[in-house]
Amino acid sequence: MKNITLQDIADELGLTKVSISKALRDHPDISEETRKKVKKMAKKLGYRPNLVARSLTSSKSKTIGLIIPKIAHYFFASVVESIYKTAFEHGYEVIIGVSLEDDELEKTHLETMMQMRVDGLLVSITEKTKDIERFEEVRDMGIDLVFFDRGFKDKGFSYLKAEDRKSAYEGVKHLIDEGYEEIAHLAGYGSVEIGKNRTIGYLDALKEAGITPNDNLIVEGGFSEEDGYKSFKKLLNDYGLPKAIFAVTYPVGLGALKCMKENDIDPREVKVLTFGKSDFNEYLISPFICIDQPTGLLGVKAVKKLLAEIEADDHKPVVEELSSGIST
Amino acid sequence: MKNITLQDIADELGLTKVSISKALRDHPDISEETRKKVKKMAKKLGYRPNLVARSLTSSKSKTIGLIIPKIAHYFFASVVESIYKTAFEHGYEVIIGVSLEDDELEKTHLETMMQMRVDGLLVSITEKTKDIERFEEVRDMGIDLVFFDRGFKDKGFSYLKAEDRKSAYEGVKHLIDEGYEEIAHLAGYGSVEIGKNRTIGYLDALKEAGITPNDNLIVEGGFSEEDGYKSFKKLLNDYGLPKAIFAVTYPVGLGALKCMKENDIDPREVKVLTFGKSDFNEYLISPFICIDQPTGLLGVKAVKKLLAEIEADDHKPVVEELSSGIST
Repeated sequence: MKNITLQDIADELGLTKVSISKALRDHPDISEETRKKVKKMAKKLGYRPNLVARSLTSSKSKTIGLIIPKIAHYFFASVVESIYKTAFEHGYEVIIGVSLEDDELEKTHLETMMQMRVDGLLVSITEKTKDIERFEEVRDMGIDLVFFDRGFKDKGFSYLKAEDRKSAYEGVKHLIDEGYEEIAHLAGYGSVEIGKNRTIGYLDALKEAGITPNDNLIVEGGFSEEDGYKSFKKLLNDYGLPKAIFAVTYPVGLGALKCMKENDIDPREVKVLTFGKSDFNEYLISPFICIDQPTGLLGVKAVKKLLAEIEADDHKPVVEELSSGIST
Repeated sequence: MKNITLQDIADELGLTKVSISKALRDHPDISEETRKKVKKMAKKLGYRPNLVARSLTSSKSKTIGLIIPKIAHYFFASVVESIYKTAFEHGYEVIIGVSLEDDELEKTHLETMMQMRVDGLLVSITEKTKDIERFEEVRDMGIDLVFFDRGFKDKGFSYLKAEDRKSAYEGVKHLIDEGYEEIAHLAGYGSVEIGKNRTIGYLDALKEAGITPNDNLIVEGGFSEEDGYKSFKKLLNDYGLPKAIFAVTYPVGLGALKCMKENDIDPREVKVLTFGKSDFNEYLISPFICIDQPTGLLGVKAVKKLLAEIEADDHKPVVEELSSGIST
């Protein structure tokens, strides 16, 4: 039996192959009348669509849209891998949009994902996203949405993230248990939730150990490598070299390391603890102690909650904070 | 003037909001008749679609599909960033599918991208992809496709990649110019094009300098960190510690470094040259000399060629190999 091709349908109807393909994909270039005609002929000839198979057979796309703020970043790369694996095990495909921390691009991705008829969305918002309306609109359209890592709390959406305060406390406690008392903190901005909570955890640990916090040891800055460089430089100028440092993120720790190099400071003289880790940590001259966020578990839980909403119509929003381990 | 919502249209027609949303998105759950009715009412009421805007106004999606084999990898993360920026500058959005080196998942992504009505595709194939048919089918459907980094040569598709042989030659020549003669090679499989060409470049440089290749100094293996670890271990056992090493990829260099650590070898005793680099290279105990692939330029050129095919109907396939620099 001959395999029916797009060309065969095209020949029967006196249309081009491209038109046939577009008609089968419901492309707006093709009139509804022609689409009907093409689909009827495809059926009659016994055409077995290959790449256009799914839209003809099911109203579920079995596809999840994933929107993340960045890609070249250990945390996201690691969560994404876990999301892919978990979704795949459950018969779902994942398509990614990277917002590059741009909230307009984030909105465009949302639009595109809706067009694609994704069955649900996993979203980690940009640093700039203030507007929850776009996400409420998605929900109004009957598309399930779960936030992970960064999202809106108490707005009726499920939201899964790593716990900050207690994990920071435990990391700093680990340093204290190792005998360090002079612990500087390269902090994130207090206006950003994760920055604030990690600093509170740091203060919790000092307080418990009876160490009085020293304002000159706490430098507030951003979350990037460049921010870490600047904060460490300020620390060196205003205070000098401390025995240990707690950096609010892994890149901030790297920035400090860069500044040490430039100032001929042997990295082995300063114990560095970072919130978050990287897979190349072991290759550093003096590896950091890392608060190891549960990226794998976060991915698994986010996918499972979303699939429960899609498949089981379980719309009870869940907010969960997962605790971290410490890797030395 | 009141802003018309999905609910208003739903009220007028006695349907649910979700049905209205689905109808406006041409969702197959909704009959063609109802879709027509909904669109007519939306128009009459002056509904301004927000998230469903584009499909109603244009037959171009202004979206490019990008399919890559992995994500947590400096080379791809860096090319992806460049592709995003270039596409964005030209008013295009990019949606990513990660194949995880699985050729079945790659095929699923192709299907999904077709369903999404992407205007074109940028693809870097998996290690396992042997079948070009799926890509020819995409082309037959009138969707433009450009390969980058990994693809099919001389099959009528445009294909942009980094040059291997001459770049490897120049890297090894750099080592020779610095006075190294005993240069081991942790090689990739000769059956894989990039592995083969990088080894030929290594041999070119030795030959030019009058150095006789020593088979015991060349260890063939894979391209991953684990492969590098194994190859270096074999080199240590069979030959001993050479003065310099040329590693076929950056991860292979890292694997060698790991093995040095375990064997108490000071990394500063061995000069390591790697094909490819990483943004954390400067933080290593003894940074590698890196053959720095033009990831940024590769992204720019791939997008520009694809847009030329989409917009200018320029279908003349171009095969281009971009040369690398050396960063020390």
